[in-house]
Amino acid sequence: MEELLYEGKAKRIYATDDERVVRVQYKDSATAYNGKKKAEIVGKGRLNNEITSLLFLKLREAGIQSHFIEKTSENEQLVKRVTIIPLEVVVRNFAAGSFSKRLGVEEGKKLSRPIVEFYLKDDSLGDPLITDDHVDVLDLATSEEVAELKAQALKINEVLGGFFAKIGVRLIDFKLEFGKGADGKILLADEISPDTCRLWDMETQQKLDKDVFRRDLGNLTDAYETILTRLGGQLHV
Amino acid sequence: MEELLYEGKAKRIYATDDERVVRVQYKDSATAYNGKKKAEIVGKGRLNNEITSLLFLKLREAGIQSHFIEKTSENEQLVKRVTIIPLEVVVRNFAAGSFSKRLGVEEGKKLSRPIVEFYLKDDSLGDPLITDDHVDVLDLATSEEVAELKAQALKINEVLGGFFAKIGVRLIDFKLEFGKGADGKILLADEISPDTCRLWDMETQQKLDKDVFRRDLGNLTDAYETILTRLGGQLHV
Ligand SMILES: Nc1ncnc2c1ncn2[C@@H]1O[C@H](COP(=O)(O)OP(=O)(O)OP(=O)(O)O)[C@@H](O)[C@H]1O
Ligand SMILES: Nc1ncnc2c1ncn2[C@@H]1O[C@H](COP(=O)(O)OP(=O)(O)OP(=O)(O)O)[C@@H](O)[C@H]1O
Ligand SMILES: [Mg+2]
Ligand SMILES: [Mg+2]
Repeated sequence: MEELLYEGKAKRIYATDDERVVRVQYKDSATAYNGKKKAEIVGKGRLNNEITSLLFLKLREAGIQSHFIEKTSENEQLVKRVTIIPLEVVVRNFAAGSFSKRLGVEEGKKLSRPIVEFYLKDDSLGDPLITDDHVDVLDLATSEEVAELKAQALKINEVLGGFFAKIGVRLIDFKLEFGKGADGKILLADEISPDTCRLWDMETQQKLDKDVFRRDLGNLTDAYETILTRLGGQLHV
Repeated sequence: MEELLYEGKAKRIYATDDERVVRVQYKDSATAYNGKKKAEIVGKGRLNNEITSLLFLKLREAGIQSHFIEKTSENEQLVKRVTIIPLEVVVRNFAAGSFSKRLGVEEGKKLSRPIVEFYLKDDSLGDPLITDDHVDVLDLATSEEVAELKAQALKINEVLGGFFAKIGVRLIDFKLEFGKGADGKILLADEISPDTCRLWDMETQQKLDKDVFRRDLGNLTDAYETILTRLGGQLHV
């Protein structure tokens, strides 16, 4: 077995023979509120691996590059190894979650335009919201990189929002992570799944994402399976 | 007696015969942590009225306009009435307070450059930090106004930092409020005092501001009197 490089809350990262490539293993763990709420949910790892793989492939077809190389098993994929920029890049189309709570805006209210937020990726600090000035004085990215992260995030929002609209799902908000490859170029990394997106059925407003777990709204695998099948994925291999 | 228009935690605002002018009365109340910690401190109102009046006068001499008209008594001043923009505009030169706590940066660390932060002025939400995008989608100010607020705040920082440096005091950070007059122009308003600035003695690093009260570091009036006398103000009228 290859060396375990990192074990996070949702995934394990393993080394491969090729130092430029790592293997991502999706776990069956669900966590929320910075790890304070936890559960094991059989099948979740497979669902997120399938959905992320599918979305990265679709993005590639639309001209958006990512770290994704290929799905290699039910719950694993190979990706290009990058150095993760310690920012959670969040795009919001509608008010929800912490945005609604912090700013007193009703969940589901459409924003006048999509916005991009940066959160400092630091669990011990609770991933605080930061401004562009903070990114600068904390030396997290250059102003050119900030501009590129925002542009890429908004472009991904457009394309991704289109995919979901086609299957009757509203893309409320989502979180991205970017990394730098050996060439120093910024590359979309990590995952795009119902763990990292808010997805609402356009007809029923039903939540088809991790809020089902966070707020005890029902069966998580049902929700994730709905997303996977609507995206054209196979439920069982 | 004129009509009380607003009673805040630190000041009362009264109408005057002139609808374009209000009277600000500084109270002897000290509050911190969004009102959770409270005390009456005799003389505090007078000290903040004196210090704010002195600083607004000095800023005027340096070419920076504000709402300040004149001090009319120990604890009162006349100011131009404005509609306050619901943003707390914070300038930081050194890490301290919530910046240090939220972002894990040691208090007293010099930032590579002064930064401007916006907080949504809403006590019920706890005055949350917001980004420029939030200012836009919440319709709090136009992008031109945001640019002007930042430019004015940084200019004020330079001039104010110069005043304090001359009297052996380091301007760590401070909070400003701006309003719009009848002409729609943005004008510096509210107060500039040890309640709204972090001021450290350059030699001893002693805190000469509201942190003395927040953190129980000693006698608040001693600290505020030090600032007033060093600025050339009269201790007793
Ligand atoms: N291509 C990549 N190369 C290297 N690391 C990656 C890559 N893509 C994602 N990662 C990182 O791998 C880890 C995935 O694990 P997981 O998502 O479980 O972490 P987590 O529990 O969310 O915690 P955190 O993201 O705060 O480390 C993350 O740290 C992520 O930033
Ligand atoms: N020139 C002005 N015209 C009108 N209102 C003003 C002016 N300058 C300051 N104010 C407002 O007057 C009030 C002063 O009261 P105080 O500073 O005690 O309020 P506070 O307790 O800090 O609460 P808050 O600022 O959240 O209302 C503030 O609301 C401030 O925004
Ligand atoms: Mg993660
Ligand atoms: Mg106030």
